Order: sequence, then structure tokens, then C-alpha cells
Amino acid sequence: MAAGSSSPRHLLPLLLGLFQGAFLLFFALLVTYDKPSTKEEDANLVAKEVSATFPFFQDIQVMLVVGLGLLLAFLPRYGFSALTHNFLLLNFSTQWALVLQGLLHHLHHGQVHLHLHNLLLAEFAAVTVLISVGAVLGRTNPCQLLVVAICEIPAYLLVEWVIITQLGVLDVGGTITIHVFSCYFGLGVSKALFGASQYPVNPKETPTPRSDLLSLVGMLILWVFWPSFVAVLCQPGDAQHRALLNTLLAMSASAVTTVVASSLLEGDGKLNPGHLQNGCLAGGVAIGAVANLTIPPVVSLVLGSLSAVVCILGFRFLSPFLGRKLMLKDQCGIHNLHGLPGILGAMASAVAIMVVSDTSSSHTSQVASAGSNTTEASWGHHRVGQQALWQVAGLAVAMGGSLLAGLLTGLTLRLRVLAGPP
Amino acid sequence: MAAGSSSPRHLLPLLLGLFQGAFLLFFALLVTYDKPSTKEEDANLVAKEVSATFPFFQDIQVMLVVGLGLLLAFLPRYGFSALTHNFLLLNFSTQWALVLQGLLHHLHHGQVHLHLHNLLLAEFAAVTVLISVGAVLGRTNPCQLLVVAICEIPAYLLVEWVIITQLGVLDVGGTITIHVFSCYFGLGVSKALFGASQYPVNPKETPTPRSDLLSLVGMLILWVFWPSFVAVLCQPGDAQHRALLNTLLAMSASAVTTVVASSLLEGDGKLNPGHLQNGCLAGGVAIGAVANLTIPPVVSLVLGSLSAVVCILGFRFLSPFLGRKLMLKDQCGIHNLHGLPGILGAMASAVAIMVVSDTSSSHTSQVASAGSNTTEASWGHHRVGQQALWQVAGLAVAMGGSLLAGLLTGLTLRLRVLAGPP
Amino acid sequence: MAAGSSSPRHLLPLLLGLFQGAFLLFFALLVTYDKPSTKEEDANLVAKEVSATFPFFQDIQVMLVVGLGLLLAFLPRYGFSALTHNFLLLNFSTQWALVLQGLLHHLHHGQVHLHLHNLLLAEFAAVTVLISVGAVLGRTNPCQLLVVAICEIPAYLLVEWVIITQLGVLDVGGTITIHVFSCYFGLGVSKALFGASQYPVNPKETPTPRSDLLSLVGMLILWVFWPSFVAVLCQPGDAQHRALLNTLLAMSASAVTTVVASSLLEGDGKLNPGHLQNGCLAGGVAIGAVANLTIPPVVSLVLGSLSAVVCILGFRFLSPFLGRKLMLKDQCGIHNLHGLPGILGAMASAVAIMVVSDTSSSHTSQVASAGSNTTEASWGHHRVGQQALWQVAGLAVAMGGSLLAGLLTGLTLRLRVLAGPP
Repeated sequence: MAAGSSSPRHLLPLLLGLFQGAFLLFFALLVTYDKPSTKEEDANLVAKEVSATFPFFQDIQVMLVVGLGLLLAFLPRYGFSALTHNFLLLNFSTQWALVLQGLLHHLHHGQVHLHLHNLLLAEFAAVTVLISVGAVLGRTNPCQLLVVAICEIPAYLLVEWVIITQLGVLDVGGTITIHVFSCYFGLGVSKALFGASQYPVNPKETPTPRSDLLSLVGMLILWVFWPSFVAVLCQPGDAQHRALLNTLLAMSASAVTTVVASSLLEGDGKLNPGHLQNGCLAGGVAIGAVANLTIPPVVSLVLGSLSAVVCILGFRFLSPFLGRKLMLKDQCGIHNLHGLPGILGAMASAVAIMVVSDTSSSHTSQVASAGSNTTEASWGHHRVGQQALWQVAGLAVAMGGSLLAGLLTGLTLRLRVLAGPP
Repeated sequence: MAAGSSSPRHLLPLLLGLFQGAFLLFFALLVTYDKPSTKEEDANLVAKEVSATFPFFQDIQVMLVVGLGLLLAFLPRYGFSALTHNFLLLNFSTQWALVLQGLLHHLHHGQVHLHLHNLLLAEFAAVTVLISVGAVLGRTNPCQLLVVAICEIPAYLLVEWVIITQLGVLDVGGTITIHVFSCYFGLGVSKALFGASQYPVNPKETPTPRSDLLSLVGMLILWVFWPSFVAVLCQPGDAQHRALLNTLLAMSASAVTTVVASSLLEGDGKLNPGHLQNGCLAGGVAIGAVANLTIPPVVSLVLGSLSAVVCILGFRFLSPFLGRKLMLKDQCGIHNLHGLPGILGAMASAVAIMVVSDTSSSHTSQVASAGSNTTEASWGHHRVGQQALWQVAGLAVAMGGSLLAGLLTGLTLRLRVLAGPP
Repeated sequence: MAAGSSSPRHLLPLLLGLFQGAFLLFFALLVTYDKPSTKEEDANLVAKEVSATFPFFQDIQVMLVVGLGLLLAFLPRYGFSALTHNFLLLNFSTQWALVLQGLLHHLHHGQVHLHLHNLLLAEFAAVTVLISVGAVLGRTNPCQLLVVAICEIPAYLLVEWVIITQLGVLDVGGTITIHVFSCYFGLGVSKALFGASQYPVNPKETPTPRSDLLSLVGMLILWVFWPSFVAVLCQPGDAQHRALLNTLLAMSASAVTTVVASSLLEGDGKLNPGHLQNGCLAGGVAIGAVANLTIPPVVSLVLGSLSAVVCILGFRFLSPFLGRKLMLKDQCGIHNLHGLPGILGAMASAVAIMVVSDTSSSHTSQVASAGSNTTEASWGHHRVGQQALWQVAGLAVAMGGSLLAGLLTGLTLRLRVLAGPP
């Protein structure tokens, strides 16, 4: 709460309470559960779906609530606020996404039928907010963070609809739709909000050994459960099995490569905590767009290693460069963890689709069937070369759309009522 | 161990060793496993039951061992002891409950057949001890805590038998039988033990930012896994799916509402750590008695919001009032987290049963079938109005029985041999 | 990184990068996934296997990455390094084991087919490294730790092959092959590396309340998920159910007995953090060799209690004795947690096999069928008396083989290029 303690203090509960009231109204009018199954086979089907989805869902909850919260606690004396803000934003954004998705997609017969699956999709939307605010962590008040969530969720739903439903992009683990989108949204917010202003470095912004340890534990929790995040939307069976294995391989390669790259760069034999906290996760970001495709396992290892390298090079060279040239603040380095590996993963998906189909045309139908069950459009629509192009187009849409929406959101945050007295 | 360091130091291992020896004897004489299945279909059934129950069981273990332990670590320099005592009490109480339940319920053919399900029920019994001791945390020695466990488990088993088996109360998530019971038991212990004595505030009892952070992490772990606790005893299928969703909705509403209510009450724009550590969980306490019923989703949101509000109002107004008027010590504020939301949830279950059946009489049989598979008596016994009354009766039994048992236990703790030299 | 900061700083990335490159080459040439199933029943089978294995796999990942990492963080100011080294070693060793296992066992038709099961077995191999390095924690540089991993994985694979495949030893939870092996390997490394040299006690080596708390949380996480570790390789159904229950009982008994034994030994009414951090886990180590056998439940309780007692007695009496007489350094006390309870568990398995078969000869085939699905040789080969002997023989092989391999590895670590300038 630190940064927000002098901010418009009555606005937060007002805004939050208003939205919560609207959510209640929406639920009261429109949301219902399915009628209980009357046939035993239907009941068994529900039981099967729950037991197939819920363990993954819990893993993702642990990632977002505990893992990400602790990862963001690397600023000393800001740990409590980081965990709290992250938790509040997750809950608010999930409900907000649930309402918007209900209005947009699931309106059947005047009623929205709520399943665990809807909650899961809403939580995926909420993830974008949690990532984006990393760009402005510790320099915004809770009220501004809330406005970010209010603006980002609809922007995400629109861009995701264009990319997945309209362009038919394959992206089961959210490399493009979640990681790239939220990164450039966050950078847009940061740029529009802070402009070229020079903030003095706050002593709170220098991690201590203790805060670095907390953050490391957060990274480890994210690392452990990441495969569940990538594979939860895959069809159970071969595709999900492949998605799990590819993610495990990519993340293992990231972890080892991070140590190699960081040791070489630092040169004093010490490991940089920031490199570890981010590089080890980079493989998980990059693998999302290809995890369920029929790629050979070595591709995952290579992609994991490469993404760790670009992540660490980003921290060492690109972030300072962007800071100097574009006056771009990126507090948590989300560009290095989500942006660069996300772009790498998107390009890899285009290449993988061309190569895999090229060398084994008999596999095409199998690769196509690897599409997740949420991908309404799938490979069948496009020929192989086209599909690769759409992957790149999807990346462009994600980057352009998010940057624009982020800039507009950042401008909103400068409103005097939100920014509070200086 | 701090508070206990000057206490009857040889009594703890003696008492603990004695009980452990008795447990061994009981197991040696009476407890066995099922004979291995000889038919493949039986073996498959066991495999299915294990895979349906064990993930929930592990979630609950994480909640109790790690989540609750950390939540209780909010007193600085008492963190280690809080985690340790919690862990010891969990293990002792589970074994003690296993023995008593074995003697009482599961004695078939002279032998107790042990399943994962028995362990789960024993762990539910142990939860009551872990909650109750929150009322006297840091002011009792380990030996006294052990005596609380020895007394509370049989009291719980008796009261739970009356409420669930005799009155046929619906309470799949333990709102009445666990939360209300353990709250008033703990308050009874506190009242009888401390009476009107004035303890000076110990500097150990003022949370520091560091201990608040640990406690917050504990809350988040509890928050994440709470749905498993509520839904584990439901029939897999629709009822379990509903129980999971209702709990998720209630807890999400609690989290958002806690921030709203706490911000409004505090007025200085800061969030009160104690409010966060408790208010966010209040929805999980309240939802237990209705989670598997065919209520509309909005009810869960409303219940979650209301329970967060009563929890925070309790911390702000009721606890100080009770402290002044009744000289009641409630160290962790269990009355605000478990008592008030528990009562709210019990009343809500009575109302929900009347309203749900009123508007959709054709659903009645379905609602009735929502009873958990541990509820031997179910709705079928009672007509709708009756069932609502029994819910209230169950609440009254839980409150009265626990208060009485708690007072008696508290008096026992004053024995010189337990309290040790002053 | 502390201890290694003055060490051969360029060797670590070099060595690590070299191996990572070789892993990539191996994967590129030889490793592939199964072709996607074309029949629906095959796809369902994969889905079933994944859903049966993956939750256990995740539990084990949490244990090794978070739980064990935190447990090792009991040295103040060494917490970050302990977590990091543990994480790096886990990833490196798993990949290294995957490569070696691929070369040795799974080479069918020139290709290695990768499944979740292979990863699981590789991770089991990696566990031995994580345990062994506990003997030299904080006194070795990262480069030396890496060399331990490079040497220990092939030694483990050889010894495990002799014990399980050749001798047909029953050891589903790795009591002999993992715990005993890694303990004596680590002690061998420590003895050969440090010889009779007297190190002054480093102030970093005295735990603080804060580091003890972290370590306690690590222990609790390990404690919660241990049953998954023991039962993951069991056949789903009765054997797995028994393995889970036996482990739960043993660990519960360990926890309670640890408090009893520690209180009696210390005599000042305080609990020794080191005793708690280790004694509570001892039952999990000992139960591994008998967990899936048709033993009565009381055996698990007794075994859990006894192993906690030997663990604590080891800390109090044996470790100081070995330190004085053999100049043996055992930084984390792995001999007390893994060695003594492991030997106890191995002997218990020999006795259990004789007694169980003696009293219920009709059960023999069922006990035999309790062998895990990774145990290629099983009881069927041997008569009962023989099987008991083989268990003891397996223990001897594990102890002798690991001690020899550990001593050789320790000598390697003394090479000037690894030890660096003094």
C-alpha cells in the first residue's frame, strides 16, 4: 500500500464496491448452474471432467496466488503489498472476465451456465493483468492498478478473439495471447503513465538478500507448476502428454542455461538473483505456442535454452538501452521474461509448423488434431504455409493491439482523480 | 515453546508417550487393511477411489500443515513454535480421532478396516483442535495444548454424531460441525482458563511486517486449497462440481469485499493485515453448509461478501467489546473467522433449503441427493420446513455443546500439574 | 555461491555448457515421442496414465524443488545458495540420468521413446545427488557439486540395476536404492574430500531462528508430499492404497515420537530444531522398502517411531562420535536421516517378508504381486527365506558400492583445478 498511501484513498473502496455490486447483479440475473444430471452416465461425465481439470486448476491457483505473489515480493518492505495487490487483482480480474465472457460468448438461452472451464478461462484472462502491472510495480497506487484491470480485461478478450477465433492461431499455452499481449500492454501503460519523467531510485527498490530469497521461492513454485498451466487446455491423451513433457524439458533447459549464461556474463562467479528469478521461467513462456505440436523433444530443449539466453541478455543489455533511449520503465523486467521469449516462441511455432509438416506430410492431420479443445478454428482451415503466416500475424496483432490499449490505459491513469495529489 | 519453557517439562513427553503407546496397542490388536482384492474389478474400484480422494487429501494436508501453521505464525518470535505446535497437534489429534472413531463407528467383526477415508474423517476431527487452540495461542504450554486435544476430539465426535446422524443436518463443508463447534470450544477454554485475569500485552504479541508476511502466505495457501476441503466429502459429479464452484465464488467475493470493507473502516488508505489474513477466508467458512445444494451462483457471492463483512466488523467492534465486557481473550480472533461466518452460513443453509425447495419443488429430490456420502441421514427423512429447523437446531447443539465442553476443558487446564509453577 | 566465490569461476559455466551441449546432441539424435495414437482406446490409455501419474509427479517436484531446497536453507546467509544449488543439481542430474538411462535401458530400435515415466525415474536418480551433497553443504563450490552429480548418477544406475534387477530386491519407496545409497555416497565424498582436516566452525553454520523457520517449512512440505514419493511407482489399486496409508501412518508416528524423544533428551523443555527438521521425516525413509507389502498397519507406526528414535539418537550421540573418531564431517546429518532409518527399513523388510509369509502362506502370491511395476524381478523368483536374504544383500551392495564410489568421487574433487586456489 506504500506507494498508494497518499493517493485518492476513498476511490479504491468506492470503485471496487461499485464493480462488485455490478458483478452481483449480473450473476443474480444471468448466471446459473447446469441442472443436475438425471442420467448416471451424465453424472459420470461431470465427475470425469472435474477430476481431469481440477488438479490442473489448483496448480494454476497456487502459481498465481502464491508463486507470482512471492516472485513480485523482491522489493524489500514492499513484499506484503505485492502479495496483496496481486491477490486482489487476481480476484477482481477473474470476476470481471467472467462477467464479460458471460456477456460475450456464453449467452445461451438468456442464461450463462457456469462451469469450472469458464472459471479457468477467466483466470487466464486475469493472468494478463498480473503480468502487465509488473511494469509499474511499486510506483502506482492500488486504485490505478484497479483501473489497469478494468481496461485490460476487455482489451485482452477482444485481441484473444481475433487471434484464436478469427486467425486460427495455435497457442495452447498462451505464449502470444497471454505473455506477448500482457508484456506490451504493460509497457504501453508504463510509457504513457511516466513518459520521460526521471524517478529517483527508491531505496525500497534495491532487493535485499531476504527479499531475493522470497522471490526465488516464488520463482520455484511457478517453475514447478508451469506445466499444468501450459497443458490444462489440451485434449487429454497424447497432446496433453506431449505438452507436459515439452514444458518440463524446456523449463529444465532454461534452468541450466540460466546458470551458464549468468555466470559467463557476470564474471565474478556469483549468480545474479534477478537472472535466476526470470531466466529459469523463460522456457515456459516460449514453449506455449508449440507445446502440443508433434515436435521432436530436442526442440523444447533448444527453445528453453534460447529463451533463457535472450531473457538474460535482455536484462543485461536491452533493458538499460530502452531505459536510456525510450525512457521506458520496466520495474520487473517483464519485457525480458514475457516479451522476448514470447516473440521467440511465436516465431518458433511458425517454423515448427513448416518443418514438421514438411518432413512428415503424413503427420499433418495429427498435428492439426493437436489443437486444443478451446481453439475453435484449427489447422484444418489453413494450408501449412498459411498457418505459419497466421502465427506471425497473430504475434503482430498481439503486439500492436496491446501496445495501443496499454498506452490508452496509461493515459487514463494520469487523470488527476486517480493519480491523487502529488 | 516459549510460553511453555517454565512449565511441567517432563509431563509433555510422558503424556504424549503414554498415548502413543496406547495407540500402538490399539492398532496392534484391532486395526487391519482390507484383504487385497482378488477380482480385477475390485482392484480397479480401489484405484478409482484412491485417485478420486487422494489429490483432495493432499490439498487438505497442505492447508493444515503449511497454510494454517504459517497463518498462526503472525506473532513474531513465536513462528517456530506456532508451526511446531500446530503440526504436533495435527498428528496427535488425527491418531487419537482414528482410535476413537475406530472404537465407536467402524468396529466390524472385531476388526477396524483402515482406508484413506477413515484418515480423512480423523483429520477433519483434528481440524477442530487446530482452530480452537487459536483462542489461547502463545499463552499456554504444549502440555496444556495436548490436553485440549485429548478432551476436544471425543467431544467433537459426540456432537458431530448428534448433529449429522441424529438430526440429519446438511453440512458437507463442516460450517456447523467444525467451524462453529471449534470456535465456541476454544472460547470456552479461554474463558475458563484465564477467567477475568488481566495479562499484560506481551511484546511478542505485536505482529511485525515480517511475521505478517508469513501469516499472509499462510492465508493464501489456505485460500487456494479451501475448495478441496469443502468438496472432498461430496459425491463426485454434479454435487462436487457445485461445491467447488460455490466455494471458489464465495472466497473470491470474500477477498474483494475484505479490501472494500477494510479500506472503508480504516480510513487511512492502508489495509489492515489482520483483516486480510482473516476476512479473505470467511467465505470459505460460511459456504460449507450450502456448497453442494442447488443454490444459484449469486448466493455464494453474496454469502462470501457478507461473511467477510461480519468478520471484519467482528475484529473492529465485537472483539474489543467482548474483551471489555466478558474479559474474553481470543488471541487469533477465531470468533470473527470461524464463529460469526459459521453462524451466518448455518442460517443461510436454513433459508436456502426453504427458498430452493419453494421455487422449484421438482428439484427437491435432487437437492436431497446433494447430501454428502458421509451424511447417513439425509433430507429424505424430513420435510422441507423441518429440514430448515434442523439446520438451526444443529447450530444450537454445536454452540451449546462446544461451549460446555470447552469450559470443562479450560477448567482442567488450570490444574496445578498442567499449569506448572507460576 | 559464497563458498565458491573464490573458486575456479570459469569452470562451472564451461563444464555445465559442455554437458548441456552433449545432452542436446543426444536428444537430437536419439530421443523421440511415441507417434500419436490412432485408435481412441490407445488415446484413452495415455490419458489415463497421465492422470494417474502426473499428480504424484507434481507432488514430488514440489518436494524436491521447494521442500528440500528450504530444508537445506538452515544455514543463515546460505539460504539463497542452498535453494539455487539444489535446483541446479536437480535439473542437471535429471537430464544426465535421462541420457544415461536412455543409453542403457531404453534403446529400442535405435530410438528412445520419452514418457513421463522416464522423467520420473530420472528424477529418482537425481534425488540421490540432492541427498548426498547434504554431507558437504556449504563447504564446496558449485563446480565440485556438479562433479558429484556427474559421478553419482552412473554409480547409482549401476547399483540400482544390481539391487533391483539382478537381486530382485523389493524396495518400492527407495529406502535401500535411494536413501542408503546416497547417504554412504555422500559420507564417502566428505571423508575423501576433507580427510582429517579441521575446519573452524563458520559463523554461517549456526542456524538462526529465521533460518530454522525456513528449514522447518521445508520439512513440513516434504512431510506432506512424502506419501506420493513412496507410492508413485506402485501399481494403482490395493498396493498403492497400502503404500499411501503405511507412509502416512509411519510419518505421523515419526512426528509424535520426535517430540517425545527430543523432549526427553534435551531436558530443558525446548524442542531442538534440528531434531524436528529430521526426525519427523525418518519414518518416510524407513517405510519405503515395506510400504506396499501386506503388513499390518501397526508395523508402520512402530517403524515410524523407531526410525525417529534412531535418527535423534544419531544426532545426539553417533554424529559427534563419528566426528571425533573418524574425523567425518556430515553437515546436514544425512547419516541420521537417510542412513540409520534406511538400514532400519531394509532390515524391517527382511523381517516383514519372513513373518508375513509365515503367518499367511496363502497371501504369498499377493505379497509378491505387491512388487512395483518397475521391479522387473519379483518375489516369484525366490522362496521366502531367500527373498529376506536378498533384501539384506541389497543393503550390503548399496552400502559398499556407494561408499566406494563416494570415496573415488571425493578424491576427484581434490584435484587442484576443481578446488581452486586456497
